[in-house]
Amino acid sequence: MKPLYVIKIGGNVIDNSENLYYFLKDFTAIEGYKILVHGGGKIATQIGESMGIESKLVDGRRITDIETLRVVTMVYAGLINKNIVAQLQRFGSNAIGLTGADGDFIRAKKRPVKTIDYGFVGDLDEGSVNAGNISRLVEADFIPAFCALTHDGDGQMLNTNADTIASALAVALSQYYETTLVYCFEKKGVLQDINDDDSLIHDINPKRYDELKKHEIIHSGMLPKMDNAFAAIANGVRAVIIGKSDEINKLKQQQPFGTRLTQ
Amino acid sequence: MKPLYVIKIGGNVIDNSENLYYFLKDFTAIEGYKILVHGGGKIATQIGESMGIESKLVDGRRITDIETLRVVTMVYAGLINKNIVAQLQRFGSNAIGLTGADGDFIRAKKRPVKTIDYGFVGDLDEGSVNAGNISRLVEADFIPAFCALTHDGDGQMLNTNADTIASALAVALSQYYETTLVYCFEKKGVLQDINDDDSLIHDINPKRYDELKKHEIIHSGMLPKMDNAFAAIANGVRAVIIGKSDEINKLKQQQPFGTRLTQ
Repeated sequence: MKPLYVIKIGGNVIDNSENLYYFLKDFTAIEGYKILVHGGGKIATQIGESMGIESKLVDGRRITDIETLRVVTMVYAGLINKNIVAQLQRFGSNAIGLTGADGDFIRAKKRPVKTIDYGFVGDLDEGSVNAGNISRLVEADFIPAFCALTHDGDGQMLNTNADTIASALAVALSQYYETTLVYCFEKKGVLQDINDDDSLIHDINPKRYDELKKHEIIHSGMLPKMDNAFAAIANGVRAVIIGKSDEINKLKQQQPFGTRLTQ
Repeated sequence: MKPLYVIKIGGNVIDNSENLYYFLKDFTAIEGYKILVHGGGKIATQIGESMGIESKLVDGRRITDIETLRVVTMVYAGLINKNIVAQLQRFGSNAIGLTGADGDFIRAKKRPVKTIDYGFVGDLDEGSVNAGNISRLVEADFIPAFCALTHDGDGQMLNTNADTIASALAVALSQYYETTLVYCFEKKGVLQDINDDDSLIHDINPKRYDELKKHEIIHSGMLPKMDNAFAAIANGVRAVIIGKSDEINKLKQQQPFGTRLTQ
């Protein structure tokens, strides 16, 4: 199988035009099959506010009501996604900007209402990603650039977490490609000492992960990220890399980059 | 060569959710290769106003300054385009929503400043449409749905008239397909008597067009539309149809539909 990278960037890249410029330039230099997934950043909140639509939080969790869905559809799929695509094209990447509705690539289920109604939020399951359709696009020499939106197959757009989309894409495409999932992060990767960038842990396998948890080197917010990464690996992804966006060029040079999680 | 329809809809379809619903249902039923092109509608103006951005007109012509470009990128490529795609998917059309930046499909040139600075408006020329890239997407069984945005190849999105995009696509794709360009219109087509829907003129060729102009049956606002249509035909498009969106199902049934312009 041929290798394929699924690379996810978040707000720290998107909100800073200089970071974004250099990231997209370096992304273009990576050879072979690749897919970009991007989150939203602060701009959706800013634009929502300029339209008089405030972010709604319940118990600290963001709620996507119909007005918020309109804003994120405009900002994620329109403003952010198309500016990323136009820049990738400038650098020579033949990108196509996508939501999960396009090509029926990612079909989600609206989150059921239990104690909290999250609104138009879509959850993914093992059947959500249409890997065959995505593969046809990739084989036609296009580079998919996904924003954090999906659809329900019945005409409704849904807001879906970008990390989850990246992971679901990497798992589903591992039928066709040897996939590596890359999460761009504000740090160089998983650090032995969070205050020391030189304490990067280069490789973690499940056994090492258990030790790192036991010694509380990995804890709190990192735990769900790591658990999801190892779940992706258990489901066919060759490796998950957690690294800093401004070092992504190391992928091209086949140099060690960030923290590499493997089976 | 296989047939391909390029079908353009404007505000009278987009602004009315019921019209849009039935149009997209009928569009889905048309067999074979097809491309949808949609304009903006009133919603861009409404959303711009809700953000405190007013439409700027100079000598009655709309100006796309940087703020307006941000609004139309959000509304055309985000809100309108993705809702169209999600609805097409519901009906079973495997649509992908696009701007000209995606896949480098349509590369425009920013309109030069003469007496008026139109801002971020892109004009097309004979090299603008990358028909090879679009054909690869179409052959991979996707249905392109274009909004009225292009890029300059240097990272800049541009606002481009949807009629012009539809015509340029039909002309360029006539290298690969027997293309028919369909403009959906508020009337049934070109009428002998503008107040009588039963006076539809079914067929117009250049000779008939000259007669209709001489007798002032076609005049004023229709002249540039007709001239552009005959220019498209002279450049390889098999036929241009001007018809009403709610009669588009006639295309499927191979029935006469609207006014058909041919060589």
